[in-house]
Amino acid sequence: MRRTKSETYLTRQWSAEGATRGPDQLIVEEPLTIQLDGVVVSTTMRTPGHDFELAVGFCHAEGVLGGHPVLACRYCADESALASDYNVVLVSTGGKAPAARPRLGVTSSSCGLCGSDAIMALVEQLPPIDTEPFAAQTLASIPDLVRSKQSLFEETGAVHAAAAVTRSGELLVVREDIGRHNAVDKVVGRLLFDGLLPASNLALFVSGRASFEMVQKAWAAGFGSVVSVSAPSALAVDTARSAGLCLVGFARDGRLNIYAPQ
Amino acid sequence: MRRTKSETYLTRQWSAEGATRGPDQLIVEEPLTIQLDGVVVSTTMRTPGHDFELAVGFCHAEGVLGGHPVLACRYCADESALASDYNVVLVSTGGKAPAARPRLGVTSSSCGLCGSDAIMALVEQLPPIDTEPFAAQTLASIPDLVRSKQSLFEETGAVHAAAAVTRSGELLVVREDIGRHNAVDKVVGRLLFDGLLPASNLALFVSGRASFEMVQKAWAAGFGSVVSVSAPSALAVDTARSAGLCLVGFARDGRLNIYAPQ
Repeated sequence: MRRTKSETYLTRQWSAEGATRGPDQLIVEEPLTIQLDGVVVSTTMRTPGHDFELAVGFCHAEGVLGGHPVLACRYCADESALASDYNVVLVSTGGKAPAARPRLGVTSSSCGLCGSDAIMALVEQLPPIDTEPFAAQTLASIPDLVRSKQSLFEETGAVHAAAAVTRSGELLVVREDIGRHNAVDKVVGRLLFDGLLPASNLALFVSGRASFEMVQKAWAAGFGSVVSVSAPSALAVDTARSAGLCLVGFARDGRLNIYAPQ
Repeated sequence: MRRTKSETYLTRQWSAEGATRGPDQLIVEEPLTIQLDGVVVSTTMRTPGHDFELAVGFCHAEGVLGGHPVLACRYCADESALASDYNVVLVSTGGKAPAARPRLGVTSSSCGLCGSDAIMALVEQLPPIDTEPFAAQTLASIPDLVRSKQSLFEETGAVHAAAAVTRSGELLVVREDIGRHNAVDKVVGRLLFDGLLPASNLALFVSGRASFEMVQKAWAAGFGSVVSVSAPSALAVDTARSAGLCLVGFARDGRLNIYAPQ
């Protein structure tokens, strides 16, 4: 694992007027493998930092914890560790977690039970969200608030943010990562460690688009609202409407679109 | 499978001045499961369309075709098919493809061979790229050219594009998808079907950031250059420098940054 979240690279800047050389700050990206009770459940490209939150938040969103508490979370590394050993996080429920299910990866399968079914099954088992939506004015204020905390974005211009926000518009957790999904998993992992799940009185902010997986992760964590600065997909809207989740998109410049509830 | 790439949803638009209701065009997102010789190699959330290109391009980038020709590509569907059967694509090499390897998914594993190793192994086996870089002026012209072809982006504001571009700056293939990776896989799949791989005399354009996986896919397809409108990650730059690939970022407004070669 590289110890920093961004690194300086020498770069050539070109325009029609000519070329110059200068330093550029780049976001660090490394693979992280997550093992739950000895079974690899995911390998994701992530920005190092808050790795335990990412590992636990991912497991929670995938439903593979089965509601069992996380007893331990550690790097694969020991004293003689190679740097890459910090790219493997071991999560333990003492063997209580249900057998990990395949989703977005390689698996042997007959046609009757494919990954598409597994994806839909992720939401079919979730309870409906039953909470008052946030005031639109509060939701509209979130993007600027989060932006002021996006230090890695300021440095590198290449990083997503996710945040958990209270009903009074206060930022509870902000996380940045090169992957949109990872940023959300890190926020959810933090809330889980703090005993704040289900997050029914919190809104989830995502800096990118609201795709299906953003809404699925929000639903799994019990958020009442999801706010995105960009567009949702049709499936994300369908899923939010099924969930009873408030889904807001294009939240920028004091305006927003409400896609769910209908 | 929904038959369209975008759909109209009734939405509420809110601002401090008041709220209105109106239609909004949303990008369609559905899961696609890819089976190679009977084994599921991936499930990805994608925008329907060019599914065979996506399936074959993905298999190529992952190295799971092992250089064997694709003999057949079809949906799982028969005459009595459900709509969801169009979310499964079956790719066949007549059983010649090597056993599919795990990567970003669920797998049982000892600590010595984890997904992180598998990710690095993806590039370690690739031959170096040996081709003249494109003229910076040509590379700088690509984003505006592609933008004029991004019809789904115009409609929905929520879709990525990838393109293969000739040395004289002509667009050979343009594909749009809610997933950045899918857009690239669709371009590579098209080139493979057309017998144009390795793409050593073409540049790959990506509308988002240049992360590791973009560069890895470009390298696997043999592209000489990768042009991104946004920032690369540190690992993407390292990988491009190892590959001998020209990596350009922040290509916008007639300017660009050259990250590789050094």
